[in-house]
Amino acid sequence: MSEGELWAQAHHDGSARYLEEGADGAVARVFVPHTAERSAADVQVALRRVRDAEPAWTLAEAERTDASGTWWRVEVPAEGEVTRYRFLIGSGGARGGYTWLNAAGTHAHDVTDAHDFRLIAHDGPPDWVADQLVYQVFPDRFARADADRPAPAWAEPAGWDDPVVWQGPHSPVQWYGGDLDGIAAHLDHLERLNASLLYVTPVFEGRSVHRYDAVTFDRVDPALGGDPAWRRLIDAAHARGIRIVGDLTLNHTGVGHEWFRRAQADPSSPEAAFYYFDEHPDEYQAWWGIKTLPKLDHRDVELARRLYEGDRSVVARGIRDGLDGWRIDVANMTGRLGTIDLTHQVARAVRRTMADVAAASGDRPGWLLAEHGHDATQDLGGDGWHGTMDYNGFTRPVWSWLNGGSEAGPGLPHGLPFLGAPVAVPLLGGDAVAATVRQVHAAMGWRAWTASTTHLDTHDTPRFRTVTGGGTDGWVDRAGRGRDRHLLGLALQMTLPGVPTVYAGDELGLTGVNGEHSRTPFPWARPEEWDAATFEAYLRWTGLRRDRVALRRGGLRWLATGPEHLTYLREHADERLLVHVVRGRHDPVRVPLAALALTGVEDIATLAGEPVRARDGAAVLPADGPGAHLYALPPTGGPA
Amino acid sequence: MSEGELWAQAHHDGSARYLEEGADGAVARVFVPHTAERSAADVQVALRRVRDAEPAWTLAEAERTDASGTWWRVEVPAEGEVTRYRFLIGSGGARGGYTWLNAAGTHAHDVTDAHDFRLIAHDGPPDWVADQLVYQVFPDRFARADADRPAPAWAEPAGWDDPVVWQGPHSPVQWYGGDLDGIAAHLDHLERLNASLLYVTPVFEGRSVHRYDAVTFDRVDPALGGDPAWRRLIDAAHARGIRIVGDLTLNHTGVGHEWFRRAQADPSSPEAAFYYFDEHPDEYQAWWGIKTLPKLDHRDVELARRLYEGDRSVVARGIRDGLDGWRIDVANMTGRLGTIDLTHQVARAVRRTMADVAAASGDRPGWLLAEHGHDATQDLGGDGWHGTMDYNGFTRPVWSWLNGGSEAGPGLPHGLPFLGAPVAVPLLGGDAVAATVRQVHAAMGWRAWTASTTHLDTHDTPRFRTVTGGGTDGWVDRAGRGRDRHLLGLALQMTLPGVPTVYAGDELGLTGVNGEHSRTPFPWARPEEWDAATFEAYLRWTGLRRDRVALRRGGLRWLATGPEHLTYLREHADERLLVHVVRGRHDPVRVPLAALALTGVEDIATLAGEPVRARDGAAVLPADGPGAHLYALPPTGGPA
Repeated sequence: MSEGELWAQAHHDGSARYLEEGADGAVARVFVPHTAERSAADVQVALRRVRDAEPAWTLAEAERTDASGTWWRVEVPAEGEVTRYRFLIGSGGARGGYTWLNAAGTHAHDVTDAHDFRLIAHDGPPDWVADQLVYQVFPDRFARADADRPAPAWAEPAGWDDPVVWQGPHSPVQWYGGDLDGIAAHLDHLERLNASLLYVTPVFEGRSVHRYDAVTFDRVDPALGGDPAWRRLIDAAHARGIRIVGDLTLNHTGVGHEWFRRAQADPSSPEAAFYYFDEHPDEYQAWWGIKTLPKLDHRDVELARRLYEGDRSVVARGIRDGLDGWRIDVANMTGRLGTIDLTHQVARAVRRTMADVAAASGDRPGWLLAEHGHDATQDLGGDGWHGTMDYNGFTRPVWSWLNGGSEAGPGLPHGLPFLGAPVAVPLLGGDAVAATVRQVHAAMGWRAWTASTTHLDTHDTPRFRTVTGGGTDGWVDRAGRGRDRHLLGLALQMTLPGVPTVYAGDELGLTGVNGEHSRTPFPWARPEEWDAATFEAYLRWTGLRRDRVALRRGGLRWLATGPEHLTYLREHADERLLVHVVRGRHDPVRVPLAALALTGVEDIATLAGEPVRARDGAAVLPADGPGAHLYALPPTGGPA
Repeated sequence: MSEGELWAQAHHDGSARYLEEGADGAVARVFVPHTAERSAADVQVALRRVRDAEPAWTLAEAERTDASGTWWRVEVPAEGEVTRYRFLIGSGGARGGYTWLNAAGTHAHDVTDAHDFRLIAHDGPPDWVADQLVYQVFPDRFARADADRPAPAWAEPAGWDDPVVWQGPHSPVQWYGGDLDGIAAHLDHLERLNASLLYVTPVFEGRSVHRYDAVTFDRVDPALGGDPAWRRLIDAAHARGIRIVGDLTLNHTGVGHEWFRRAQADPSSPEAAFYYFDEHPDEYQAWWGIKTLPKLDHRDVELARRLYEGDRSVVARGIRDGLDGWRIDVANMTGRLGTIDLTHQVARAVRRTMADVAAASGDRPGWLLAEHGHDATQDLGGDGWHGTMDYNGFTRPVWSWLNGGSEAGPGLPHGLPFLGAPVAVPLLGGDAVAATVRQVHAAMGWRAWTASTTHLDTHDTPRFRTVTGGGTDGWVDRAGRGRDRHLLGLALQMTLPGVPTVYAGDELGLTGVNGEHSRTPFPWARPEEWDAATFEAYLRWTGLRRDRVALRRGGLRWLATGPEHLTYLREHADERLLVHVVRGRHDPVRVPLAALALTGVEDIATLAGEPVRARDGAAVLPADGPGAHLYALPPTGGPA
């Protein structure tokens, strides 16, 4: 199968058009495009599911054929909690045909079960998750409402326009004094950017500006305005129809946490069992060996009760206070230490508590999002975390494709380290990064993918604008050196599955060489310095995401990939969108109009970018780059 | 990377040359061939392992460079029971280099952890397993020593030369009367074929010729000669240095089993809890719904005690009787039913009991082999089954490549169903099947792969000779229509990792269209009808397997694959072998002599097939097919 022919591959995914879930199973549909080698009459589609580790087979039935291909239909009975399935597509004729279709695509040879599709019996994430557009705020650096609030004892106050200290011991205590009322005062900015959900990094009192070193879970930091300001922010957001998600670390506390202080003071205290003391009081396990962040021991029942078991837990209180979900920090390591692995147990308990609290108040359960910067396969798709921060399936591949080089020269990789790996961000082709996108999400499963967040960057990474070549000075890339690739990344973020999450300041074109450097105080007072072209692009692409149900809830079908382009369909019963993101000039992608169920290019409406041309019965997509193109195609009848 | 250039890929595997296991971890070595794009000075190799679901990185050190490439060395500390690791290979230069190396090969983009290499803290399989060559016997059809023994009540006696009834209700009761003394009388045949281990399908009393429907675990079937004959066979095998492995079904018993009869007769009996009664006595769970094979419920402690827990269990008695291991029938389904999944628990208990009995007698533990006809990934690599019958990673890909067609025409696929799938055996290229071989074994892990058995066919499948086009009459393919491809399969079986297992009669060129049909009574009396060319090839290739340590214990490094050829190195400290199996004519494979650390082709000794030619500094491998070629290359200094 050559690069250009992905549109000829059979397709299935977890979206509503392809998987109709019911009480005891689902109806699955497979679309098999017509090709020269394969006529509809020739094809046979069989479902293979696994029951008690033994395959069971069902032949699918052809449901409807149109000019582009045939829809096949088959019932998938649910077997236990997770039913794994894939399809074998055979065709008759002299040499037979033999193609497997799994969540990673099609394969002309036998495959393992690793990338099977999954039908999950557990309740899914809240239905509203798919429609969200998230705006991420790091409170100390977003906006300051109370200019007179005194600095906490640990803090080293800075003026709002001071440069950010981005390394060394002064970095975590450089206090700008942003606060929760400051966020509340700028919710109009979120609305303007079509954000529907506000994610705020930790607000419990800590001893640093990031507050991942909580000293208590009982009060919001007075330096942020305390509990009353938190109440005001939640209410103000909800008053505008904006949801809000909090940030909670279950892996460790700060060394100054009241529990840890009691634990150190008294080995017979209940809190002494919350931590892993190798030798009391000074030898204990800590996150990455950093002694200021002692690791929590989830084997302790009382710890679980305080954090997430039952109605009085920290998790429950947050939901009762009105949070629409929790983002769990370092979720990958939570509950894990050597041969101890309680992560699933913790995740299940958190989710159950959130559901119980919501049920008691008549609300739908909230969203449970896990920070996992690596392969989260084992932790997703069950009854624990709904989704993850999709560094592996979005951020890494997008960085690799849109790496914009440094002062060393355009197209040359800059020296930015690659998200924890001991190498610089690589520069890869579009087909390579599409392979990663497909494999990671095949392993993760559709449901978890669409309940995960997609990030161009976060408070833990360099700014994407620096990755795309926009400079390293920590300020706005007004020259626009990294703008083109930045906006290609934006287009991918707004058009791929997963919940797009804009880290405050990305929309201005801010740069930064690491997570600390990216925590720039938001330059409200200097709008003339924002990169206007970037800001306008954010307004446009977030608006498209908001307005287009296929971008939020559609399936994802790859049409073509090459080193310089990524081309895919988002399919929904009510609309079909074609996305074509181009890094640089390439041989034009041609898709036969029939393969798109079109009679002419005049049926294709250009929503962004350049129009499609027609030639010899094919749609010819723009081949110059950079460019991000979005097209509306008339919806097909689909399977029905 | 083009097909021809696999030899330029970095390599690591679980063999001794690449993984030196110690008490607290291992030393891992990676071989990075020199290429035009990559000089040794340019390369950086980093180990990525996962600890508490978080990656940890270690830079490798260059240990030794020779003409062909550089050996890199890095320590892999053991983390818990299984440490997953892979390598990132970067190279400097203008555009950087970015390649992952995992157990499935190299990848120029990010990958999931699914195919990471694995370092396993549990004890491995017995060291002797790697050196075995297995001969599989189905007792009723191998040899009859006692011609006068009366038939059991259920049996329909047949004369030794009668045709096999291969479908319908008469098939399982067609009794030829082969017996254990008959096997003992033909151990010289095993020795001739260089077999070191005899695997005998079930011998406990049953009501069919296959005896997978045991009526007791307390006595060997009198129709096979009973317990005394079993004793004689074990002793006779051991006297010749031949090991012996028994066959035990833990998933179900026969409906006539003494336990099931008691269970049906008395719902308060202990045995009533051994089965899943939906409604006593006649509604119960059974294997594939076949009511004559009631499924065992491993939640019952007394059942576990009788079968595999402790010294008096069936498993323990077999080992004490002298068995060198057990093959567990239907291991994939054992202990599994819907949401119940006790398979690991059963596997661990069986292995522990085998180890305990062996320890008590001063012996090394035996081999625990699981029947799993599908993706066994989840069930291997821990402290349960040592390995599996490798249908997924060997039989299926080999059948797909060497599918020899039927009367419909050479090269056309015959209509043989593909091992349970609702399609005919496909016909695929060598590169496609190599992809399957790599992926399946990457998922399985090296240790489990090398403790698994490789089968061209078994008593449950058509004969391979029929797959390769040798006909369907159930008799020897004396015309040799399927011979060429059969012998290519033999060469693969004897030169790939995994323990080769010859199903009695394959060496004669027997055919058969399904498992029942393949249970041909062995034609001892008519040696003139054996296919002599096939038999001679078995003698030659099994001898090579016996004599060449690199075939038994070497690593596996792919050099090149294409539709018509599979080409790989088996590397061991004491010897290096190059295998080149050719299905049909193709553009010659050329490997630079330097890439093989050779100064000239005269260093290459031809052990089988045609010699290598030299041209322009490259070794040019034979390009006509069919042919199976084996070469000895001088060992390199390796890493040391």
